[in-house]
Amino acid sequence: MTRPAPLALTMGEPAGVGPEIIAKAWAALRPEGPVFAVVGDAALMRAQGHPIQTIPDLGMAEDVFARAVPVLDHPLPAAVTPGRPDTANAGAIADWIEQAVNLAMAGEASGVVTAPIAKAPLYAAGFRFPGHTEFIAELTADQPFAGTRGPVMMLTAKDLRACLVTIHAPLAEVPELVTAERVIRTARVVHEAMRRDFGIASPRLALAGLNPHAGEGGSIGLEEITVLAPAVAQLRGEGITITDPLPADTLFHDDARATYDAVVCLYHDQALIPVKTLDFWGGVNVSLGLPVVRTSPDHGTGFDIAGKDVARADSLIAALRLAAEMAAARALR
Amino acid sequence: MTRPAPLALTMGEPAGVGPEIIAKAWAALRPEGPVFAVVGDAALMRAQGHPIQTIPDLGMAEDVFARAVPVLDHPLPAAVTPGRPDTANAGAIADWIEQAVNLAMAGEASGVVTAPIAKAPLYAAGFRFPGHTEFIAELTADQPFAGTRGPVMMLTAKDLRACLVTIHAPLAEVPELVTAERVIRTARVVHEAMRRDFGIASPRLALAGLNPHAGEGGSIGLEEITVLAPAVAQLRGEGITITDPLPADTLFHDDARATYDAVVCLYHDQALIPVKTLDFWGGVNVSLGLPVVRTSPDHGTGFDIAGKDVARADSLIAALRLAAEMAAARALR
Repeated sequence: MTRPAPLALTMGEPAGVGPEIIAKAWAALRPEGPVFAVVGDAALMRAQGHPIQTIPDLGMAEDVFARAVPVLDHPLPAAVTPGRPDTANAGAIADWIEQAVNLAMAGEASGVVTAPIAKAPLYAAGFRFPGHTEFIAELTADQPFAGTRGPVMMLTAKDLRACLVTIHAPLAEVPELVTAERVIRTARVVHEAMRRDFGIASPRLALAGLNPHAGEGGSIGLEEITVLAPAVAQLRGEGITITDPLPADTLFHDDARATYDAVVCLYHDQALIPVKTLDFWGGVNVSLGLPVVRTSPDHGTGFDIAGKDVARADSLIAALRLAAEMAAARALR
Repeated sequence: MTRPAPLALTMGEPAGVGPEIIAKAWAALRPEGPVFAVVGDAALMRAQGHPIQTIPDLGMAEDVFARAVPVLDHPLPAAVTPGRPDTANAGAIADWIEQAVNLAMAGEASGVVTAPIAKAPLYAAGFRFPGHTEFIAELTADQPFAGTRGPVMMLTAKDLRACLVTIHAPLAEVPELVTAERVIRTARVVHEAMRRDFGIASPRLALAGLNPHAGEGGSIGLEEITVLAPAVAQLRGEGITITDPLPADTLFHDDARATYDAVVCLYHDQALIPVKTLDFWGGVNVSLGLPVVRTSPDHGTGFDIAGKDVARADSLIAALRLAAEMAAARALR
């Protein structure tokens, strides 16, 4: 078996905590990996206080990693002030993501890990995607992929894998957005990803209800009966193991988590509350159902603490480790 | 200082786990209290395998408690089969609650703790309240009370106190039910209860947002701006310390919980997911803003496990201890 290819790690918003947590993640992972190379600005990376080495291609990352942060240098056009994003750099930030995705599609990188970006400066520069995930889905749209295409957003915390049917929708719009079709598509992507990316031969999915007590037989809302039950029936007909819609408050304690491999949640806080309650610092955001493996830390750019050397790299480290595990599982198939 | 009065503990649905967990709670609390007397059926209580003693009035509970379960006997009219509730007993079950509340209003009991009831058989017998809480509010409606009247439902788990603006509403109705008026009234009751029942001189309240990221400045829903911010301004004008609406997913991890004494949540699962994730077995349901102290276990009748000696009394024990603490705090004022 050959060594796995390195991960491509995008620097993200340069005025945020990205460069700092990347340096901290390298210091933590340097002894044992997984090996990664930064796609970003080498000068900014050098300023973080660890040795860096620019490399011409990813193939050199493994040799460099034990002694320096390997960087595929794509310099920024404008100077960086921590905490103050500059629209002049937006194009380069987007290019880094595209570079990393291209490396993964070419097989030179085993996966893509993305440090946080700030949406406002990117939007001001003409970026037209809600976030990383949709941008990466577009970049990989023409890449062959055997399976149901996502992206589906999954958050992990400890042994919890929580997947989302709706993401950044106002709560008032959630009930109409939770359609049987969306639930079915999400569950298919999750089922296939558990097999392909997590090596689980017979995944067990749980489904969260929308209403208190999962509607209590229709007395507290009908969506469990009219929307979710038909979706469950369809999925089971396809051979997917999934529970009936269950009361969301009973799904996340230790004993409950042991009963499933992933849970399909219907809205943002239904998934994010347990994820961040269980593991506030180490959560990982995963994009399922894409031709490339992609993870990211589950936090933002941290403009308020950028440049102060207080940011924690736990989530980025967990994202790098998880991407390597997923890439290894894909490579075995 | 005189000894505190005993707690009045209603037996709840006799075909559920109530009698069993009461017996287990007595065995656990017998050495150190708090002292309670059961308001229920003495014969059914005796069948649980611990010594019981019927008492004519609550004043005897303290003397009896170390050697037997004290019971204020109000016998059931119909025989009890575990797991099979009987409408014929519904009247007695409701009477037990009324008896216990009367004892608390008379000062003979320091508080009321209620074992779980099943709503369907009570409804079938003409009971017209959504649950315990509303029934107890009605029973105490004419009792003098210095402060903002509830009831407000609060759930506890470890150091978390989560209070609810809406409770058993379908999710689709939550956005319209979350009015500034309801948020203000809830927060007032919580603020006063933290002082009166928990001995916290200057309570710090947190407020959860409705939308993902608390609306992210209005880009993911407007309720934080149009409804919650005005409520916060009003409450601060009254001298109540409360946060701006915060992203709900960031409110419940260890560090976050240390920053507030109670959190005002807007809907059922926003409060219940963290409560049951943090402490699935030991959560307590508290009714704030009533003339009597009232707590209950945070679980149902457990018909599926009734009579099998597998029910856990953790939540009932926690409810008894918390009621005693609240009664002691009230007594000091």
